[in-house]
Amino acid sequence: MSFKINSKVAACGGQFLKLSHQSNVTKCSMDVNVYLPRQYFQRKDEKNNQGAKKQIPTIYYLSGLTCTPQNASEKAFWQIQADKFGFAMVFPDTSPRGDVIPGDPEKSWDFGLGAGFYINATKVPFNKNYKMYDYVHKELPMELSNYFNENLIDFIDNVSITGHSMGGFGAISGFLQNLNKYKSCSAFAPILNPLNVPWGQKAFNGYFNDANLEGGKHDPTELIQSTKYLSTKEILIHIGTNDPFLKNQLKPELFLDKVKGTEWESHIDLEMVEGFDHSYYFISSFVPQHAEFHAKHLGLLN
Amino acid sequence: MSFKINSKVAACGGQFLKLSHQSNVTKCSMDVNVYLPRQYFQRKDEKNNQGAKKQIPTIYYLSGLTCTPQNASEKAFWQIQADKFGFAMVFPDTSPRGDVIPGDPEKSWDFGLGAGFYINATKVPFNKNYKMYDYVHKELPMELSNYFNENLIDFIDNVSITGHSMGGFGAISGFLQNLNKYKSCSAFAPILNPLNVPWGQKAFNGYFNDANLEGGKHDPTELIQSTKYLSTKEILIHIGTNDPFLKNQLKPELFLDKVKGTEWESHIDLEMVEGFDHSYYFISSFVPQHAEFHAKHLGLLN
Repeated sequence: MSFKINSKVAACGGQFLKLSHQSNVTKCSMDVNVYLPRQYFQRKDEKNNQGAKKQIPTIYYLSGLTCTPQNASEKAFWQIQADKFGFAMVFPDTSPRGDVIPGDPEKSWDFGLGAGFYINATKVPFNKNYKMYDYVHKELPMELSNYFNENLIDFIDNVSITGHSMGGFGAISGFLQNLNKYKSCSAFAPILNPLNVPWGQKAFNGYFNDANLEGGKHDPTELIQSTKYLSTKEILIHIGTNDPFLKNQLKPELFLDKVKGTEWESHIDLEMVEGFDHSYYFISSFVPQHAEFHAKHLGLLN
Repeated sequence: MSFKINSKVAACGGQFLKLSHQSNVTKCSMDVNVYLPRQYFQRKDEKNNQGAKKQIPTIYYLSGLTCTPQNASEKAFWQIQADKFGFAMVFPDTSPRGDVIPGDPEKSWDFGLGAGFYINATKVPFNKNYKMYDYVHKELPMELSNYFNENLIDFIDNVSITGHSMGGFGAISGFLQNLNKYKSCSAFAPILNPLNVPWGQKAFNGYFNDANLEGGKHDPTELIQSTKYLSTKEILIHIGTNDPFLKNQLKPELFLDKVKGTEWESHIDLEMVEGFDHSYYFISSFVPQHAEFHAKHLGLLN
């Protein structure tokens, strides 16, 4: 399947492509934004003259509850960092969408549309479309790689993952399940122990036939105990001390408790930052640090 | 009158204050956001120990049609520049607002609420509240100066002004009418000759008894001919070549035509930037250049 370009928007030294495509996995049309950094356009020019160089790596950004690909594109301000270090950004949607997709955001903003939780649902009726795990970690990278077939951007191998809140959960969960795929992982105010908080329980009970068993395979606090540390891998996390969801939904203390004593302990940097909340003001404030962290792992600082 | 703090939001190294206050000029409650840069908090600490230093200067940002103080606060990303150079930012609203204020945004998004055009209306019924010129250039700076009475921030004397679209018009128009007040002026995609374009004509015919006479006193293309150049003053303007309003609403060619041959000619830098549109993606891409331009005029680069 191919992509439809809904718009091209110049930003900083590069360009946002606002795309949509028919997904075989979620069985609906999916929106996705891609930021092509200035290096992409430079190499495109060079390539015509001089041939290929090392490919531009990609960072996948998973958004939080209720978001579309637009929110982070407009407010997280990754583009200036992408231009600085030379990586592409991919902003997927947070769920399948459309009139025929189950889930009613007017009744429930934290489940269903805009709240896919980056897992593969097994429970009827969500198991037909809510396959965001396969979509984000498998289909989307392949489709982007096929579409941008000039070999200028690496969407599959030299890639990292990050996200916010529900997307921070999705990033850490997806990273720990795909350590050979992602070079590094970071998260802004992630839901770290969904099995034990209202947002996570509602999602896992709604999407899974067996919330504890199936959800446990995605829960970062469970995974960090069962996933063997792999050399060079690191996780960077920021959480604001004024985040209104800190105590009831994020649970960094439960995660850190399970990290303690594992090989991961010295490779996870969880920073509580004084006064910050859960908003894009918080995210955009720490994007420069996350960008540099990923740039190091993607080989861009050499 | 004093300000009510609706929220304090940590961002980058400083803090957004989301304020509201009762205006004697617009005779209603006005929202305004202020970004206090990291230097403000540093000096606050220092002051307790060491006494006063040079005050932190202020840049006023006037937003475009339909905007509230939130849009630019969230999407223009001035805060990282404010922290870099050490200036405060003020984001006023675009009109008086409230149930009793005339203007119906459902019938008309480009006149009335969210579209005050930074002038003092003379026509009934708008002449009671639509006094955005006096509000932005006189009352608001005085009120802020009285409220932040620690003498750490200069809201009145060492100040510059910028804005987008309708706010770009408001910035240039206000600058040319107050050359002794503002150190420098910049604009993103400003409406440069409102007398000759639909947005401007609708506003001037709606707010003024005599659109040509009264509007002419605010029109940048008129003002630039009648305003004597004042030493050190400069205007920086960026407009995207893909701006959908370029031809029908902005009219840089009419403005530049009148600039030609005046003393202003070598002090106005109007850059057409390839591929950019009218959005905050465009604004945020050039905020760093505008910040450095104003920093120079505000004495922050010495």
